[in-house]
Amino acid sequence: MSKIGVVLSGCGVYDGTEIHEAVITLLALDQAGVESVIMAPNIGQLHVVNHLSGEEMQMENRNVLVESARIARGNIRDIALVNSTDLDALIFPGGFGVAKNLSDFAMVGADCEIYPDILRLTSEIIEANKPIGAICIAPAFLAKILELMGKSARLTIGNDESTAKNIVQMGSKHTVCNVGDILVDETNKIVSTPAYMVGNRISEVAIGIEKLVEKLISML
Amino acid sequence: MSKIGVVLSGCGVYDGTEIHEAVITLLALDQAGVESVIMAPNIGQLHVVNHLSGEEMQMENRNVLVESARIARGNIRDIALVNSTDLDALIFPGGFGVAKNLSDFAMVGADCEIYPDILRLTSEIIEANKPIGAICIAPAFLAKILELMGKSARLTIGNDESTAKNIVQMGSKHTVCNVGDILVDETNKIVSTPAYMVGNRISEVAIGIEKLVEKLISML
Repeated sequence: MSKIGVVLSGCGVYDGTEIHEAVITLLALDQAGVESVIMAPNIGQLHVVNHLSGEEMQMENRNVLVESARIARGNIRDIALVNSTDLDALIFPGGFGVAKNLSDFAMVGADCEIYPDILRLTSEIIEANKPIGAICIAPAFLAKILELMGKSARLTIGNDESTAKNIVQMGSKHTVCNVGDILVDETNKIVSTPAYMVGNRISEVAIGIEKLVEKLISML
Repeated sequence: MSKIGVVLSGCGVYDGTEIHEAVITLLALDQAGVESVIMAPNIGQLHVVNHLSGEEMQMENRNVLVESARIARGNIRDIALVNSTDLDALIFPGGFGVAKNLSDFAMVGADCEIYPDILRLTSEIIEANKPIGAICIAPAFLAKILELMGKSARLTIGNDESTAKNIVQMGSKHTVCNVGDILVDETNKIVSTPAYMVGNRISEVAIGIEKLVEKLISML
């Protein structure tokens, strides 16, 4: 049975993982008979956002691994303890957590830094030429990892010009893509789909993510 | 376009809504071209559970509506402001939040009380003979609402004997049901599926919920 790592970054689109994208990914993997290895870093969230008002909850402190465990129903591992040799591929669902907790892309763009264990695991997966799926905003942070490795890839975050420009600054190539479509970089085995970077409806987001998972599995 | 209310009770299986069940419900409704009206009560959670350790986080206080907004991506209404005449049906995803926040069923079983606005809205939907979908533990709390209305129905929570006994104590009839199946009470227009009360895999939970949504829509 293949094992695909799913990296979470909290629980909620504005300060963590985009919940729909994560659940649709887990569902598509299970439907394909693939084992999901869910993981997250054991660190504090950058901040906590009230998802009703959109405002920061200044007095709140939450942990990325503990909140991600909500999506995983408790079945989650600290990414510091995960070896790349145990995985056949890696998928990053989106949400601001990717750009706020797994990296600081949301604050500094193309000059961002990557959380060390994310960098270690992801670069090992890339070195081993195992496939990576990057959903929503995740391709932007992946461009930085590739840049740090002296590599570049074809990526998409949909049609957001400012984020696309950042990807190009980090040395990768950006291609516009619709919500229900995927962009495939066959050389680097990287599949990306814009999901809620473009989409408004959960059903159209699901179409893109299901294509991504199917393509990724075909690359194993 | 039909409008179906989806009632949330927080964000996470142990102290709120079961996230997978909620997302699969929203996806199935959108795929069917039905509008979801997501709502939750604006009240404090009974408690907050660390989903990694399973332990209560004693110093934490969270609000059911605010946390539910994570699953809804902010597109959620205070249930106190929702009129039954605006809805064609109602669905309750599961999770302990149903038995801890929408009612106190987790603490007192068959003697439980129902949060007043949940009772108002649900009993109006039942009086109007509009369909109701109850997932996972939700049928247990629905049995109490039916009892308070002097009604009873055919329900399932899967095969848990103690919860099934509680349903019978509240005057409804319990039937054992598998994770990928639904139980339909045609007279009361109530559809239930056990989901994670029985299931271990997200894909089998999805089969039951997709059948529930399809059946519910056929009853509109």
